[in-house]
Amino acid sequence: MHIDVKRKVPLYRQLADYLESAIRLGTYSPGDRLQSLRQCAQVNDVSISTVLEAYRSLEDAQLIQSRPNSGHFVAKLPIRLPEPDVSTPPASSATVELPTLVQMVINSENAPDLISFGSGYPSTAQLPIGRVERAMLRAVQRSSGALGRYPVLSGEEVLRQAIARRGLSLGCVLNPKDIVLTSGATESISLCLAALLRPGDTVALESPTSFGFLQILEALKLRALEIPTHPRYGLSVDALSLLLRESRVSAVLATPTLSNPMGTSMPVAERKRLVELLCSHRIPMIEDVIYNDLAGAETHRRAVKSFDHDGWILLCSSYSKTIAPGLRVGWLHAGRFGSQVRMLKSAFSGGNCSINEIALSELLTDSNYNRQLRRLHKINRQLLFDARQTIGDSFPTDTRVTNPTGGSMLWVELPGTINSLTLFTACLDERILIAPGILFSASGSYRNCIRLCISGAWGAEHRRALRRIGELASELLKGVVS
Amino acid sequence: MHIDVKRKVPLYRQLADYLESAIRLGTYSPGDRLQSLRQCAQVNDVSISTVLEAYRSLEDAQLIQSRPNSGHFVAKLPIRLPEPDVSTPPASSATVELPTLVQMVINSENAPDLISFGSGYPSTAQLPIGRVERAMLRAVQRSSGALGRYPVLSGEEVLRQAIARRGLSLGCVLNPKDIVLTSGATESISLCLAALLRPGDTVALESPTSFGFLQILEALKLRALEIPTHPRYGLSVDALSLLLRESRVSAVLATPTLSNPMGTSMPVAERKRLVELLCSHRIPMIEDVIYNDLAGAETHRRAVKSFDHDGWILLCSSYSKTIAPGLRVGWLHAGRFGSQVRMLKSAFSGGNCSINEIALSELLTDSNYNRQLRRLHKINRQLLFDARQTIGDSFPTDTRVTNPTGGSMLWVELPGTINSLTLFTACLDERILIAPGILFSASGSYRNCIRLCISGAWGAEHRRALRRIGELASELLKGVVS
Repeated sequence: MHIDVKRKVPLYRQLADYLESAIRLGTYSPGDRLQSLRQCAQVNDVSISTVLEAYRSLEDAQLIQSRPNSGHFVAKLPIRLPEPDVSTPPASSATVELPTLVQMVINSENAPDLISFGSGYPSTAQLPIGRVERAMLRAVQRSSGALGRYPVLSGEEVLRQAIARRGLSLGCVLNPKDIVLTSGATESISLCLAALLRPGDTVALESPTSFGFLQILEALKLRALEIPTHPRYGLSVDALSLLLRESRVSAVLATPTLSNPMGTSMPVAERKRLVELLCSHRIPMIEDVIYNDLAGAETHRRAVKSFDHDGWILLCSSYSKTIAPGLRVGWLHAGRFGSQVRMLKSAFSGGNCSINEIALSELLTDSNYNRQLRRLHKINRQLLFDARQTIGDSFPTDTRVTNPTGGSMLWVELPGTINSLTLFTACLDERILIAPGILFSASGSYRNCIRLCISGAWGAEHRRALRRIGELASELLKGVVS
Repeated sequence: MHIDVKRKVPLYRQLADYLESAIRLGTYSPGDRLQSLRQCAQVNDVSISTVLEAYRSLEDAQLIQSRPNSGHFVAKLPIRLPEPDVSTPPASSATVELPTLVQMVINSENAPDLISFGSGYPSTAQLPIGRVERAMLRAVQRSSGALGRYPVLSGEEVLRQAIARRGLSLGCVLNPKDIVLTSGATESISLCLAALLRPGDTVALESPTSFGFLQILEALKLRALEIPTHPRYGLSVDALSLLLRESRVSAVLATPTLSNPMGTSMPVAERKRLVELLCSHRIPMIEDVIYNDLAGAETHRRAVKSFDHDGWILLCSSYSKTIAPGLRVGWLHAGRFGSQVRMLKSAFSGGNCSINEIALSELLTDSNYNRQLRRLHKINRQLLFDARQTIGDSFPTDTRVTNPTGGSMLWVELPGTINSLTLFTACLDERILIAPGILFSASGSYRNCIRLCISGAWGAEHRRALRRIGELASELLKGVVS
């Protein structure tokens, strides 16, 4: 047995890796029952909670399934696509200069004749737009002249209260007074970064990371320090710990649940370690929780902030991924940095439109929201499963793909000789939009990677387009396309 | 005769000053007819257009009236309140640290039990809020799923077109493609400043200036260089020219029409000189045209940008003062800096809500908008007249007050020993909100000044409150209140 308390890797993860290799090697076959929690704990000389955590992580990877009152079983159809390795970005920080291609990817999104895997937008078909429109109409009718007044800076109290209530599902007790409404998660994050940092300061990020984050860093003239990130367990707390000792990091910006683009979600134990590390170094972290509502497991919905008692974690989010991106309402909770962030909000834009806030508050208190989340999760899981099958069938051998537990993004690592910029251009010639890997790094990494968003009105046309991407990649590999 | 081509002061202004002193001294009496344009030109050895410009400036000051086909006449009731002198701020730049009092003045605005002269907000009673609400309802109904999509970065084309058409009244031919919609003039201005400057750079401003501007400078860590400003003719181009030679100024931020708080409007000739000066120094100017639609005279509606052929002037505005502050829609035209500003907009907040933009576009193309402007102008003139009378009756002798041609702000210079912060507190104790002078300067000037906004539902209660401010000031002067 390979479990060793002296190794740096947490016990539950050593156990999960050990069991996964047993499944992959055929020691366990599909349908086999795993040892009970108690048995497994005794055999491996670990606690039952360690086993539970290990089993959960195997469940997240769709390798095993739990059946109520009967135990854990090896999944029937574990997809055999290998996942990417943990990332290995350079250990020094870099200034950010995103290629102008980013704007092209963003702007192409609304082009009607494109089959888009380009951006992380949810599909209108999956969102309750009819209900949102009705809520807007009611909000206008009930606004009692709100359009004639400048709004209050922090936003409508009724929405701040609704968000605070939803905060319970993040494991956080939030005071509505400390919540500031914004025009979206992007404004939330840029306000927090602008309040915490000065040009030239360094921000630690997951690697690969969201190009939206990199855009903000570039605009604020901040340096990026990319942290090795595991495709399933997220940001490496060990690597961050090491880098905090070696380099001057002024803040961390991360998405611990369903990070963009890898779809990783940190295990609870790592979340705790992360908060302890940050608090001991007195380094603030901006936590983007925009995808938390899309996570299947309650443990992944829980925010890192839920372990923070000292206000070093700043929460940023919006409901653009679950209700309506066009509403333009986001929020933030700036922990101990509330007054600085509020001052910037006042100086840069002032309050936002009350109507949208009132409408959103109605949609959030609505019991339908939880049903909407369950529906979205089910659809997303199905789409991801379907897309991974198609990739497995049609992409070059040695392609690696992430296997996220929710959301709508896949991170694809193609064989190393493929330049994803060339693939991007070849795809665009056939009116297919993908996001090339170099957009997700400040260090020019991920040249052979692409991000695919599987969220549109998925159907035969999309499956065909996805297959076509694989064919084009194979042609590139053979040197047919140069 | 005092007109001298060698003096630095423009000829038309020398002539206007000469005629004004003749009126003030009683050489001309109310109802007297002035010389014809031709006569006056011959007598003073200047061109007819110089006389026309001088007469216009006397009209703006309400000292004379023009009657079609019969000439110019001395006004019947010239208010005898003296105006403040041209301001004399320090000639060196300063970092900006606004007192937290600013937030208090802004936040108090929505307090229901206050009689507010505090902020430059229009009164709901003067705005077409019912029509705005109906336009919002229609926009939601016709949005065809816009709430389900991320908006395009620059905003809805239909509104950019409507704004470009309105641009003609600013004397500007604007390409709708170059217009970027924002969440208000504040976002417009902060995006432009952030795109043009780096922390530590210096911005030249009118003095006194808007505390909103100073807030943005503080947030972006920019230095402020205050330029002497005439209460009627605005920013001194001569002083700016001198300071440009002596100091490193990276940009100018000004409101050439109805500047906040003095309500000054630069004469056309000065606007031309300003553009020439800026272009020759290759220094950009952010021109806030938010009050231009409130100006009575067409010459004051015309933007400085209308004389700019090289893209050095950036236009910023919104319709918060004329249609509805709660809509949160503003715009900018960044001249030669379009791509930089667009990049920041994308990084910091992305596009805004389409619904509000569609609603506003309907209200702008509406022929009612011009009627609304005429109505607003008439109301504002009446309110300002009324308020100035009350001030003349009840404020301490030696009080000076501006006499703006439109808008809703009065800048009051109290006798020098009065500390307007003490007056602010004394007023607040009686539930009256005023804005103390030090908020309008980065150099701690204007301790004895206050800004009064006369825009609420003006009536007996407000007149009483205004009189009370005067009484409190008189008591302060006598040392009754300490």
